[in-house]
This record gives sequence, structure tokens and C-alpha cells, in this order.
Amino acid sequence: MRIAMVGCGRMGAGMTRRLLRAGHEVVACDPDPKAVTALVADGAIGSTGLADAVDRLEVPRVVWMMVPAALVDTVLEELAPLLASGDVAVDGGNSHYWDDPPRARALATRGVHYVDCGVSGGVWGLEEGYGLMAGGEREAVARLESILRALAPGTGAAARTPGREGEPAPEEEGWLHCGPSGAGHLVKMVHNGIEYGLMAAYAEGLSLLRNVNAGAREGGADAETAPLRAPDRYRYEIDVAKVAEAWRRGTVVRSWLLDLTAAALHADAELAHLAGSVADSGEGRWTALAAIDTGTPTPVLTTALYERFSSRGEGLFASRLLSAMREQFGGHVERTGGGEQAP
Amino acid sequence: MRIAMVGCGRMGAGMTRRLLRAGHEVVACDPDPKAVTALVADGAIGSTGLADAVDRLEVPRVVWMMVPAALVDTVLEELAPLLASGDVAVDGGNSHYWDDPPRARALATRGVHYVDCGVSGGVWGLEEGYGLMAGGEREAVARLESILRALAPGTGAAARTPGREGEPAPEEEGWLHCGPSGAGHLVKMVHNGIEYGLMAAYAEGLSLLRNVNAGAREGGADAETAPLRAPDRYRYEIDVAKVAEAWRRGTVVRSWLLDLTAAALHADAELAHLAGSVADSGEGRWTALAAIDTGTPTPVLTTALYERFSSRGEGLFASRLLSAMREQFGGHVERTGGGEQAP
Amino acid sequence: MRIAMVGCGRMGAGMTRRLLRAGHEVVACDPDPKAVTALVADGAIGSTGLADAVDRLEVPRVVWMMVPAALVDTVLEELAPLLASGDVAVDGGNSHYWDDPPRARALATRGVHYVDCGVSGGVWGLEEGYGLMAGGEREAVARLESILRALAPGTGAAARTPGREGEPAPEEEGWLHCGPSGAGHLVKMVHNGIEYGLMAAYAEGLSLLRNVNAGAREGGADAETAPLRAPDRYRYEIDVAKVAEAWRRGTVVRSWLLDLTAAALHADAELAHLAGSVADSGEGRWTALAAIDTGTPTPVLTTALYERFSSRGEGLFASRLLSAMREQFGGHVERTGGGEQAP
Amino acid sequence: MRIAMVGCGRMGAGMTRRLLRAGHEVVACDPDPKAVTALVADGAIGSTGLADAVDRLEVPRVVWMMVPAALVDTVLEELAPLLASGDVAVDGGNSHYWDDPPRARALATRGVHYVDCGVSGGVWGLEEGYGLMAGGEREAVARLESILRALAPGTGAAARTPGREGEPAPEEEGWLHCGPSGAGHLVKMVHNGIEYGLMAAYAEGLSLLRNVNAGAREGGADAETAPLRAPDRYRYEIDVAKVAEAWRRGTVVRSWLLDLTAAALHADAELAHLAGSVADSGEGRWTALAAIDTGTPTPVLTTALYERFSSRGEGLFASRLLSAMREQFGGHVERTGGGEQAP
Repeated sequence: MRIAMVGCGRMGAGMTRRLLRAGHEVVACDPDPKAVTALVADGAIGSTGLADAVDRLEVPRVVWMMVPAALVDTVLEELAPLLASGDVAVDGGNSHYWDDPPRARALATRGVHYVDCGVSGGVWGLEEGYGLMAGGEREAVARLESILRALAPGTGAAARTPGREGEPAPEEEGWLHCGPSGAGHLVKMVHNGIEYGLMAAYAEGLSLLRNVNAGAREGGADAETAPLRAPDRYRYEIDVAKVAEAWRRGTVVRSWLLDLTAAALHADAELAHLAGSVADSGEGRWTALAAIDTGTPTPVLTTALYERFSSRGEGLFASRLLSAMREQFGGHVERTGGGEQAP
Repeated sequence: MRIAMVGCGRMGAGMTRRLLRAGHEVVACDPDPKAVTALVADGAIGSTGLADAVDRLEVPRVVWMMVPAALVDTVLEELAPLLASGDVAVDGGNSHYWDDPPRARALATRGVHYVDCGVSGGVWGLEEGYGLMAGGEREAVARLESILRALAPGTGAAARTPGREGEPAPEEEGWLHCGPSGAGHLVKMVHNGIEYGLMAAYAEGLSLLRNVNAGAREGGADAETAPLRAPDRYRYEIDVAKVAEAWRRGTVVRSWLLDLTAAALHADAELAHLAGSVADSGEGRWTALAAIDTGTPTPVLTTALYERFSSRGEGLFASRLLSAMREQFGGHVERTGGGEQAP
Repeated sequence: MRIAMVGCGRMGAGMTRRLLRAGHEVVACDPDPKAVTALVADGAIGSTGLADAVDRLEVPRVVWMMVPAALVDTVLEELAPLLASGDVAVDGGNSHYWDDPPRARALATRGVHYVDCGVSGGVWGLEEGYGLMAGGEREAVARLESILRALAPGTGAAARTPGREGEPAPEEEGWLHCGPSGAGHLVKMVHNGIEYGLMAAYAEGLSLLRNVNAGAREGGADAETAPLRAPDRYRYEIDVAKVAEAWRRGTVVRSWLLDLTAAALHADAELAHLAGSVADSGEGRWTALAAIDTGTPTPVLTTALYERFSSRGEGLFASRLLSAMREQFGGHVERTGGGEQAP
Repeated sequence: MRIAMVGCGRMGAGMTRRLLRAGHEVVACDPDPKAVTALVADGAIGSTGLADAVDRLEVPRVVWMMVPAALVDTVLEELAPLLASGDVAVDGGNSHYWDDPPRARALATRGVHYVDCGVSGGVWGLEEGYGLMAGGEREAVARLESILRALAPGTGAAARTPGREGEPAPEEEGWLHCGPSGAGHLVKMVHNGIEYGLMAAYAEGLSLLRNVNAGAREGGADAETAPLRAPDRYRYEIDVAKVAEAWRRGTVVRSWLLDLTAAALHADAELAHLAGSVADSGEGRWTALAAIDTGTPTPVLTTALYERFSSRGEGLFASRLLSAMREQFGGHVERTGGGEQAP
């Protein structure tokens, strides 16, 4: 099958190459000619722009956008007039699922189908396959099936779930038609929300393991801070990188994120090259918004999100307010207290 | 009544003065002669040390310790041999309540009573009265009644609770015999645990009010961070100091902590003189430990405690781990991302 | 001054009476004639409907709506054509502040001013005064000044903040012009968000005090659950109602919410008449949404919100998932475990 | 090598069988003769009791205890006199790591070595291998090496971490000597603490996916509860079981816990056979205690723990307090509110 890949950055390029390896034809389209040239060297069909890329497809066409969420509507504005009834446009980026139904309705006026498809896997997807969550009309998603199967990891990527029998279902290959327009990005959104929670769980736990030497560190001279109650219990020097590696096999916490964590710690046990200012790209926020809207308690996921905000210094004024209150009621001076009672 | 006040720092000095004003006699005892002299100038009886202070009391004696929790056992070691059957020793500091029953048992072997008494009120207690939470034998606490009543704010400090009638109960005067040995410090511990939660609620909320101008601030060029979805909704410049002042009257959130917050913000709306590194003096931790031991969910109180830890930079390694994972799976580079998709 | 009060339920009726006591004239308007009659008996001017109420005002008119947030737009639709240039319509309910600017713009086309005014104080406001947070044009809010001052508690409701001098500012009387359209409801929204956090702090802490008798309760035969590590530390029977009363005076945690808590516990120490299914009326959610939108960490406030969701059983499926995972990896059977190791 | 396995329940039996398959000799010891007989049928050496089991070993002996944490000290009391200098006793259960150093010191007086070894893997360990975290003297752990290697999954259980070269390290086989006495149980403790966080992240996220049909459900007539703001955004019926299955391949959130979750949901998508009352077996609590002691912020892990407490109804009194406060300030009646304003 031949499709156009619009956006040949890290994700789009990897997906193009995986499709090429599976025998598909891909028209590469990117504002940066170098990105296109690199893919042409690997077997892709080049294009000089969106119109040219669309021209190189056969009807009914499939155009897969892999661009930043903020640019999707701009691309669609240029793309829509180039498409005709029966064509399919796919947004494979991290759009908010609220944006999908209006886009689908707008394209439907021209007979064009719109599929929202969350794509997970990062830079590893080229080799290991991508997890794919699609939303839209059944027939439009069905048209993409061979593409989705080629991008997905396939059944071999995990042992079969006990009780499952017969022909593997799509979800056993790593892709799923999740529901009507928006359902794909919705499922991807929650995927990322969970991701934040999982990451925070590992980060907090490993950070604790690093701190269980607190009893061996220089005693805090700061009388404002609670002294360690039983320092003898906290004199362990744990090799956190080795622990992460050991946990990868046989334990309950084994996971792909742990694999990555072990790799990162093996390369730099102190992670001193990082500032610890953690970005968030939207889905974690949208997950929290959906949880609040629907009245679903997700304190772990949302607290994980807030930890990212705090890592970027966004909690500073709140902390100053706490210090200000302590100063007011107890005359506590930051960091230099003299052992007086806290009221 | 005459008592000895051992420890004439900020808290002990204020309490001494309040007792003197109420007509009690107080023997002031402190390693720092200047602290004693200042109180003698206000009517206290001076002393040259613990033995001298005890000598100046009449049997049965009452000795009130107002020293840092870490010094209580040292003081008791010196004090115990000076006391006799029927005497009462009071720990008014912030000891862990677990330490009280052993102390009570040790002193009981000499016939000496031990009372643990949480004291709240900070530097304001001198004028407004102290909140007092006592633990120990009924007769020992009863012996302290006139002292407790003098220290406490009295019934006038708050309107009478609907439904209460007749002679005011001790709790209506601001003091309470909470139960056997340890109960006083236990109730004070939870008081402080709640205090952390209350403080965090104000700090987070006021911090949010300060941030609702996010839409008016320079747009984030950082493509790694989710853009503000509806900037027009966040173009308010709220005068947080005025809001805190206004809330002091008539609202559901009015409180003494809010009074203090309004004062702090009136004095320095930016709180720029503070670093935002927030100390914790033990009780918040012990509250969390008790919650965990007893299986009581207290996520708000404990999260407030963790915010203090984070304010002191204790979350840095965890944040670095998050950045490391993002680097691993998506090639995300801290702060300088180029708009690629988050996997 | 004469104004119309549209909506004479609990809040509207109390406000009407407070205005009447201050010498203002109030035209009472409510679909329920009994609500109007009751207020007429107290000195209000009756009305048979919105048009009639508006008729009874002098230009420029002031109409204060005190209706459920969901009905504001319906009322405005009927009200707008009755008003003329220079009139002021006030929404005193709990609208989302996002709804205010569009309403203000719509009314502005007719020259009518719109003021959003958060009102706090509940059923106590009649006697104690209401906390008021107004948003809108300066001149419109200025027109309301005598009304706002009458509704507000006044300077006497709290001691003056140290450092404040001269003529009291409006915020010292308990009302504030917070900013342009929406600012009033915005500040009220965050007020309620904080309220959720404060309430949770008290509830969690007092709940813990009630549980510190865990060591005295029947030992858990359930080997799946961690046994209490030091039962002797948890054999206290604390009278929580008395503690709440005692804390009202002199302590750091004293507040109006604590006053109410003490009253509730005095009336029914077990609170057995309540199911513990806690409603939330919107502002707590909107506060969390704003925190997430602006990247402000508010884990305490949001966790408090989620506790309300959980209290209504909304966490059940998540809990079942946890039990399901435990069943899968360890063969753990809910509640009836046999002491095996947790993997 | 020949060792004794004391405790042949689910975990001990599985480990015995895995050791037998690897060619080791295992003396099975359990108070229940049927448990021993079953293992003898699979090649183990039977024993009639602890003394008999010890008799069947050659010096220096290795005795591995796989008994509930609460029984370890009892077993050790009986076992210690049977052992001699140079023998090794292993506690493979979920003891608190604080208990290990005293045990090690007590046994050391007889020249007996004590190794604490956290074992993860549950009922799946027999086939997939166990994750092992050992603490104690280097030479004692070295003595166990062939046993640990047989129990562990081996290098094949996960792809090699990039950058690792040469002979595989023990942690690459799935076992680790973590440090001195207690270090094994300490690392296992944090492992379980992380486990709680991971489980909560999946449970919350999947629960949210199940709730995104909130807009399609019967509209809440309860005016006390915030209405869904944009019901059209929440009309998706997501097949959560299929999503869990799809996520197992290619996504960032793939993990062993997700494998188990998919299996559980495939077997019973509603999980209606479960009550959702989630046990906790100690390590999650101890992790939180260690975090608090060392001042390490772990809000995600601890909130996950508190969710378990809440799932067992431990938050009921706190919820009642919230309802009581609402009743007090606003006259709010639980569940039957009449649309009045929340103060």
C-alpha cells in the first residue's frame, strides 16, 4: 500500500522506515528537504510539498500526519482542498481528543475520512514496533489495517494472555480501533497519564533507595528540621543502578520503563547531566482534566503531574507562603532556627 | 501558685509573663542569665540553675520544662533526683508522644508525676493565650489547673458552641486533659499535622491566584511544555494580599492562619525576602507515621508534608530520573525540545 | 438604596434581610410566592415576577441574582430586555468565571453593566456578614458600594492587620473589587478550592485522632493486612469533640471551619446521621482545572477534591483492579488470605 | 547443592520445585505433612520437622525460611540451637528490614550467618524465575550463589542493557547482593512500595477510561453535585479489556503488571467478583515510613497506599466530617440538596 507521511521528524521518519521494511510505499513530505532526502535514501518516495505528495498517491488516498499537535489544523487547512471523497487523513500526533470530532465533521463535508491515531513507542518504535490507538469510522480504520499491522509490534511482542484463543485479535498485535472520532487520542491521552504515574512511582522509589544513607550523612545542625529518629536504620549505600537492573527480571515491577531507567542509570548513576526540570506535553494535564470532569479519583496520576510542575519551580511562591506563615506565628527564621518550639 | 519555668526562650518567656500577669509566681530558670534577668525585671523570681530553681519552690513542686524536644531527657536526668514524691514535672515542648509513657514510668518510681502538655500559640500566646493539650494522671493535671487556666485564652476567645450550656468546660477555656500519659503530645502532634495541611491549602490556592495571569505572560517558546489552552481565561492580575485580607471576614476560609498570611502579604506582597525552603519540626512526620500505622488515609496531610521536603530540594534526584526516562524513550532533551511527539 | 433580589432561597433571603436591617429597600423576587411573602413580612417589597420586580426599581437599576449557577443564563435572557443603559445586573451565585466575560459583553451591547460577585458565608451570613468578591467595571462595582458594605461583615469582624493604617480599605470590611469581569467568581472559585483543602485537613486529622485506639481494638485476624507494629502506642481513647472545642482557642489551627466542626461533633460525636457521601458543587473542580491549565502545583487541593469523589464510591472500579492484580500475581484472595508472602 | 526449605506454602513450594528442576537437592519442611508429601512426589527430600530437616543437611548447612514474617522469630528460636558455626539461615519472606540486623547479631554469636533475601515473582516465579534481593555478609551471600542463580530468571529474561559488556553481572541474572544485613529486605520493601504506585497508576487510568461515558449516563438530578460541563466530550464506550491488551505491545506503559491486568480483564471485564477491598501487607507502609524518616518526597507512593486504606472503608469518619461541615455552614443535606449556593 502507498501512503504519504507528512512530517518526517523523529517519529515520522521511524514510522516511514518501519513501513518501508514491511514492503509499503511511503511518500515522504517535510518542510525540511534533508529529512525527505534521508528517507529517500532508505527507499521512500520524495516530495516537494503537500500538494506534490498528495499527487503521488492513488485514489482513495491515505495521508498520515505526524506533526506537532499545534500544527495539525494548519496542515489540515492546506491538505483538505487537495483531498477528495473517500480519502483518509490520519492525525498520528498528540492532539487533544476534543479537537478530533470537529475536524472529522469538517472533512466529512468533503467526503474525506479522518482518523485520530495515538502512537506510542518513541525512538524505539522503529525496531520494536509502535503501539497504536485509532479512533474514527470503522471503514476508515479498516482501510488502514495493513499500515497499522506493519507499524504495530505484532503478536510476538508479548506472551499470549491466558484464556485467549483462535485468530489473534488486533489488540494482540498492538493496535486497536478504540471507538468513534477522538477515541484514539483519548486512549492515548490516558496512556500518557498512566505513564506519568508509573514514571513517578519509579522515580520516587529509587530516590528513596538513594536516601537510605541519610543516617550516615552529616548530621543536620538545623534545629528547625526534624532530626532523623533512628539513624542506624538509614546507613545503607544502595547501588541504585544495579537495583534497577536486577528488578528487570522476575520481579513484579518489571517493565519497559524500568528497562529504560536501568539503561539511564547504567550510563550515568548520578544523572548529573540533567537538571531535573521535567517537561509535560499535554496528555497528563488532559487526563487530569477528564478525571475531574467525570468525577473519577486519580490522585496518583495528578500528583505525578504536579510533581513535574514543581520540578520546574512552579511551587516557589507557595513555599514562600509557608515560610511566611511560620515566620508570623513562631518567629521562625528560614534555615537558621534556634531550637525553639514550633507552635 | 508558684512554679518553675525551665527554659526561658521565646515560648518559655512568653508563658512566664502571662503567668505573672495572672498573679502566679514563676521561678525562671535558663542557662542564659540574660534570659532570666529579663524575666526578673518583669516580676519573675530568678534562679542560678535547676537545683536552685527547685529549691525556691514549695512542696509539692511543679516544674514546667519548655526546652527543645531533644534536650528533655537530659534535663529530666538532672531534674529527677531533685524532685520528691508528689511533685509534678511538665514537658511543654514538642516531644514525640511515644517518649512520654517511659518518662512517666521512670519518674513514677520516685513518686513524681509527669505531665505532657502540648502548647500552641507561638509568639502570640502571651497576649492571646495558649492552646493547651495535657496528658497524664488525672490528679497531676488537676494540680495544674490554675496554671493551665491562666495560660489558656479563656472562654472569651471564641463564641460559645451552640448547644453548650452551664458552667464552661475546660475545653471551652482552651485547655484539655486529653487522656493518659502521651495523650497531650499526641493531640498536639495531630494539631500540627493538620496545621501543615491548612497551610498548604492556603499556599497552593493563593499561589494559583497569583498565576492566573499566565495567559498574559510571555508565551512559552518551549515546545516540550504544554501550551496554555485558553490564554484569554488567564489574564487576571489579582492582588493576592488584598484577597487574603478580604477573606478574613465573613468567608468560609477565615482563620488565624489566614490572619497571619494577610499580615505577611501586606508587609511584602512578593515575599521576596524568603527562599521558600520550608522546615518541618517533627510533628507533621509523626502524624503521617501514626496515620500509616493505624491505616488511616491522610493523603492531604502527608502530601503537604512532602511539599515541604520538596521545597528543600529533596525531590531533585526523582526529577532527574523523570528527565532521564524521557530522554531514553523519546530522545527528549531537557528544556530545549523541538516540538517532536511525546511517545 | 433600592435593589431587586432575584432568588430568595437560603442565600437570597438571608442577604435580603441583612440589607433590610441596614436600611436598604429590597424588592424580593422568587418563583415561589411563599418565599416572597416571608420576606415582605420582614420589610421587603413584594413582586409577582421579574418584570414586576424590575418595574419597582428606579433607574439606574440594580438587580442582584441569587439563583443556582445553572439558571443564571435563563434568568438573564428574561432580564436583559427589561433593563436599560446604565443598569447593573449582579450574579451572586457560583458561576464559573469563564461564563462571566461573555455575559458582560452581551449585556454591554445594551449598555447594561454586569458584575460577578462571589458570596461566602452560608447560613451564617445574615448575622455575621458575607464575604464578597466582585468582578467587573470599576464604575459598576462602585455603584454597588453601599450594598456591598451592608452585606459585608465590616471591619469589626477581625482585628486590624499589623501595619495597616488610616481609613479602612474595602478588603478590611470584607469585600473586594478583584478585577475585570470574571475576577470575582475567580477569586470565589479559589476560595472554595482552598475550603476543600482546609476541610480535608481537619477531617483527616480528626479521623486519625479517632483511630489512635487501633491497638485496643480487636486484633485483625486478616493475614493479608499488615499488623499494627506497636499496638501499645495506639491505645488512646481521644474525645474528638472535646479536642475540636479546645482547639478553637489559642491554637494555630483555630478557624471558622473548626468552630463549625466543634459544633457538629458536640451535637453528634459519632456523626452517625451522615452517610459520608460528600458532594462537590463545582468550584473545587474548576480550581483544579485552573491549576492544571496554569501549571501550578496544587496536590493538596486536588487530592482533597478526589477524596470527595472517592467518598461517593467513584473509586470502586480502580480498587477492584488493584484486587485483581493481587489475585493475578500472588493468588491473593480478598479478605481471606492465608498468610502467604506478597510477591 | 542441598538446602532445607522451611515453609512449603505457595512461595516455598514453587521455589523448591524450581531448585529441583535445576538439579539442587531440597529438604522440604512444613508443619503440614501434605505440603511435604506433594514436594517429595516432585523429587524433594521429606522431613518430619525442623530438627529432622537440619539433620538431613551436610555442614556447612543452608536453611531457607519461607514463612510469614510474623513467624520468622519463632522459627529462628527453634532453628538457632540446631545450627553450628558456618551455617547460613536465610529469611526469604517479607520481614521488615529493621528486624534483620538484630537477628544477624544474635545468630553471629553462634557463628551462624544470616541472610535476608527479598523474593519477588509470586505464583509465576516457578516458571519465570524469582527476582532476588539479598542482604548480609559477602561470604554468606556468596555461599548461596548457585541457589540464587537457579531461582533467578537468568539473563535471557530481558534484553541486555545498552552499554553493558562482558560476563553478565549478577543483577543481569535477576539477583543482587544489595549490601549488609537488612539491605535485601530494604530493597524488596521499596520494590513493593513502587509496586503500589504502579498498580494505582494503572487502576486510576483504566478506571478513568471506563468513566469517559459519563456524558451518556443518566443525568445527575442531584443539584449538590457539579454537572458535567461538556457531556458531549464524554460519550465514549471504551473496551477497557481490549485497551489493556493493546497496550502490552509497543507502548511506553507495557509491563508485567499490565500483562496481569489484561489477563484479569479478559477473564472478567467488570471484575464483579471482587469487592474492591484492597489489602496491604506491610512493605508499602514501611516504604512510606522510610520516606518520611529520610525526608524523601514520595507523594505518589504514599497516596497509592492511602487509596488502599480508603478502599477498606477507613476514610468513612473523615467523609462524615466533611458532610458535617457542609451541613453546618450551608445547611447542605447529603444527597438531597435543593440547588442552593454553596457558601
